[in-house]
Amino acid sequence: MVTNDETISVGQYLASRLVQCGGSHAFGIPGDFTLSLLDELLSVNEHSDDRLTWVGSSNELNAAYAADGFARVGRTIASVVTTYGVGELSAINGIAGAFAEDVPVISIVGMPATGALGSGALLHHSLLDGDHEHFVRAFREVTAAQTVLTTETATAEIDRVLTVALTSSKPVYLGVPTDVAVARVSAAGLAEPIRARGSEPGALAAFERALAQRFAGETAVTVLAGPRIHRRGVEGRVAALADLPGVRIASQVGSKAVIDEDHPASLGTYMGAITQTERARRAVDEADLLVMVGTVVSDFTTGFFTQAFDPTAAVELALDHARIGYAVYPEVRLDDALEVLARVTAAAGFAAAEVIEVPDLAAPAAADDAASLDHAIFWHELQGWLPRETTVVAEAGTSFYGALDLRLPERSDLLGQPVWSSIGYTIPAMLGAGLARRDRRPVLIIGDGAAQLTVQELGQVFHHGLAPVILLIDNAGYTVERMIQSPEAVYQDIVPWNWRLIPAALGGSRVRVLEATTAGELRAALAVAGSAADDALFVRVQLPRDDAPRLLVELTQRLATRPAESVKELA
Amino acid sequence: MVTNDETISVGQYLASRLVQCGGSHAFGIPGDFTLSLLDELLSVNEHSDDRLTWVGSSNELNAAYAADGFARVGRTIASVVTTYGVGELSAINGIAGAFAEDVPVISIVGMPATGALGSGALLHHSLLDGDHEHFVRAFREVTAAQTVLTTETATAEIDRVLTVALTSSKPVYLGVPTDVAVARVSAAGLAEPIRARGSEPGALAAFERALAQRFAGETAVTVLAGPRIHRRGVEGRVAALADLPGVRIASQVGSKAVIDEDHPASLGTYMGAITQTERARRAVDEADLLVMVGTVVSDFTTGFFTQAFDPTAAVELALDHARIGYAVYPEVRLDDALEVLARVTAAAGFAAAEVIEVPDLAAPAAADDAASLDHAIFWHELQGWLPRETTVVAEAGTSFYGALDLRLPERSDLLGQPVWSSIGYTIPAMLGAGLARRDRRPVLIIGDGAAQLTVQELGQVFHHGLAPVILLIDNAGYTVERMIQSPEAVYQDIVPWNWRLIPAALGGSRVRVLEATTAGELRAALAVAGSAADDALFVRVQLPRDDAPRLLVELTQRLATRPAESVKELA
Repeated sequence: MVTNDETISVGQYLASRLVQCGGSHAFGIPGDFTLSLLDELLSVNEHSDDRLTWVGSSNELNAAYAADGFARVGRTIASVVTTYGVGELSAINGIAGAFAEDVPVISIVGMPATGALGSGALLHHSLLDGDHEHFVRAFREVTAAQTVLTTETATAEIDRVLTVALTSSKPVYLGVPTDVAVARVSAAGLAEPIRARGSEPGALAAFERALAQRFAGETAVTVLAGPRIHRRGVEGRVAALADLPGVRIASQVGSKAVIDEDHPASLGTYMGAITQTERARRAVDEADLLVMVGTVVSDFTTGFFTQAFDPTAAVELALDHARIGYAVYPEVRLDDALEVLARVTAAAGFAAAEVIEVPDLAAPAAADDAASLDHAIFWHELQGWLPRETTVVAEAGTSFYGALDLRLPERSDLLGQPVWSSIGYTIPAMLGAGLARRDRRPVLIIGDGAAQLTVQELGQVFHHGLAPVILLIDNAGYTVERMIQSPEAVYQDIVPWNWRLIPAALGGSRVRVLEATTAGELRAALAVAGSAADDALFVRVQLPRDDAPRLLVELTQRLATRPAESVKELA
Repeated sequence: MVTNDETISVGQYLASRLVQCGGSHAFGIPGDFTLSLLDELLSVNEHSDDRLTWVGSSNELNAAYAADGFARVGRTIASVVTTYGVGELSAINGIAGAFAEDVPVISIVGMPATGALGSGALLHHSLLDGDHEHFVRAFREVTAAQTVLTTETATAEIDRVLTVALTSSKPVYLGVPTDVAVARVSAAGLAEPIRARGSEPGALAAFERALAQRFAGETAVTVLAGPRIHRRGVEGRVAALADLPGVRIASQVGSKAVIDEDHPASLGTYMGAITQTERARRAVDEADLLVMVGTVVSDFTTGFFTQAFDPTAAVELALDHARIGYAVYPEVRLDDALEVLARVTAAAGFAAAEVIEVPDLAAPAAADDAASLDHAIFWHELQGWLPRETTVVAEAGTSFYGALDLRLPERSDLLGQPVWSSIGYTIPAMLGAGLARRDRRPVLIIGDGAAQLTVQELGQVFHHGLAPVILLIDNAGYTVERMIQSPEAVYQDIVPWNWRLIPAALGGSRVRVLEATTAGELRAALAVAGSAADDALFVRVQLPRDDAPRLLVELTQRLATRPAESVKELA
């Protein structure tokens, strides 16, 4: 019970709000401008049910990636705490990725004291020009809201920017001067939780009436289900929709398996002209009634703009509005709109739709044990082994394109970054994913080039007792770039590492390390992974330098016939 | 011989200019938007004496740090080539550090094609809001000039921003759309080299007359010599000045040993109240005639603003202007002003100044072989071993504070980042330093916490055949932060690594790996380093968690008596 005269430090208030909003974990690295802030954020605080959990990162970019992975898989928010200048700028690429892919990561920056900022003091971690707003201006470009706290406005500003993060599902920036972090403020506001803004009831009702009219006379509906469904954690409502007669559901590359891929209503993943099957593509492109739910339109999600459907004729349920053709309904939120869609669809009384089979594309003939591994064999064996309730974490490039052809088992999903596509993302993202859902084993597929960017975060993965299956594809450099242009260029090469030593070097003393250069060795390694589900496994998978998964080969062949700049928009 | 009708690609023009300006090396990672650019930058080109040398980095922040180290030690420019969005933002902290410390790093970004930028295409590596200027706006905050090239303006814009970099000694931003990279332009401009803007002759002459008047009646001069001397590569002129009678020279933390520290004119390093000796401090603070040459004023360079001299009464030679008291002489450049200073000083006919001894502060009594290592023993042993012509690379925190107490041998200098102080800087900076001056062996001192941020760049160091001595201080976390506040806090801990395995894991198959937990083991390790000067050596040096070098202890004790925010401006 909070009374109006109780006080709390600004840092404690912030921590309480973060935990209240589901942001139980903070990732980062300390710096001299963050020490007081961290002491307050992590202190015991009777206004918070749980204390904020600190996860020390090996660098700030990794911290931002890990927070992003935590927020995605936990369907919540997560925070990154960095120090002024050096720390925050190191993390900015990860925050930009969260913006591009709608992940509410809270960037909390420990700043110099209010007086030093105001006087333009010539401090370390600054540009020595007396301007202490350079970095918050940089973050304006990649966050949905920014604030530098003062004691007077701290609680209101914390509530404002967190509400923006919850409502927009975008990252926000919170600068906390050292003196403000420890200043006392009223705890009273904490009694009132903050939430994402809800729908405007009138707009919602009008949308439902109009949607019922739009459905009239239709015989079936095709739903294109996008990644923003995950951001709102409303997969259950999509699954319920899938069970209604006359409904077919295609996912996007960022929401693969948003419904069980073996579900009769599933069309697999829609990617315009490179959609897995022609019948599935036509079910979307030629649908009389297409409903876009939480979709993202970008080069990667549309097979490089080869979609043939007319979005202006479609119904769209976006995060913060709905649309029927040209008619926009502001303030109609995705979760409410999905309930409306289910009611209207059920009322439409469609007949059952014919099932469109999506073949298992990762399935060539099984290879002999002695066969040298290539991508076809690798993905086939992985498909055959993948257990239920797995988070498949696939790095941008060959790994992600290969994973798109997998048929994911029940209650599994794919974690990747198809829009921002920042290589190195998946190792720290796997840490966040594993901490957010300890009941789900991450299976990481990553190439050697990408792994070198952020490899040190494997130390945190092992230190926190996660038991991922890590499939390190050792193929001598940036294969996805080789597929696009100049495969022999010097810049495509990387420094060869001794990958077998990496887990132990990073403190993973109990990690099982295996090699797979043949089909038999890969089967054996995956068998070990299956039999030792509580152990971390690191498999160095040797693949040919210039080999790639089916989808990437097809895509590069298609793009090779298009203007040069399109080809260069692949990886 | 270039004739007006010869054409060349924009990428080739840029590479030719970079090499012409001394920027022989480019660091970075390829991306789909950089492939055409890289092919042009690295292609044979008859308008360039030498081809640009590509150094593939393990990530973009490391690339920026390496370019910074190359430019500092090579007294030149260096470039970083990254891809749109994901790559450039990953490097921005390194570019900001170059701005803070006056290093002309050229940030070259491969961008989507001009048409895609103009139409606001929803591309990967973008924020999907159609605004393709977010990232160049972010870089406006940390660079001295920015441009996104068009074919029409490419050559003029390249020349403009490179001239800014040379003149201001600050980083600049060059965005190159994929289509512009390959567009043909006239090579004619290359016949005319670009240079830093020179002094205005009238202003220079007026300055010389006024300086002679200022010197009249004085009996000696104290010179405070700062890091911007290194940026202009005019150490030789400072050394010549030091040989004149009546001259004493103190360095700053960023320009330690700018003159040989055994030179009779050397006062060691000036740091305000924490200057190494009281007599040296008074020689600066109480000088009747103080000349500040290429100095930097910040918290770290002034012992946290404890300097007692009056800058408005001093003479200052800045990068792009000179000042005598309140009289400013614009367009008088540092190199020209130093020549004037030497002439005026020689003409003044001062008597020889009394030598002020700077004791060897890193010298306690020698410890028994069996003595467990602490900072006192460590720095003493290092002092005793340090060979001539060494680049001592000291990481921010305990390592840099310890190195400030070393008396550097002849023709050695200290590479660190005292203003920006971004931890992890020194590993990639050592790569750049080693490539810029292969005749100088880098000796790196870095703590375990900092090393984890950028460790992967050791792979490049070994791959390029450098033979550094790496002294990895294993002291269980962020000791400099523990010195400031909350030493037992969870955020001060790091994941324990098996450091002995790191060099081999990163491909350093021929690196000598040693352990030092006692004085004897450290002596033995340094003896190995001395006897095998062509081999890379990696020594894990075990030091107590809460021990620190003399200077850091003194500083934290002094600051502990000052307002909280000052204490938090230490690391």
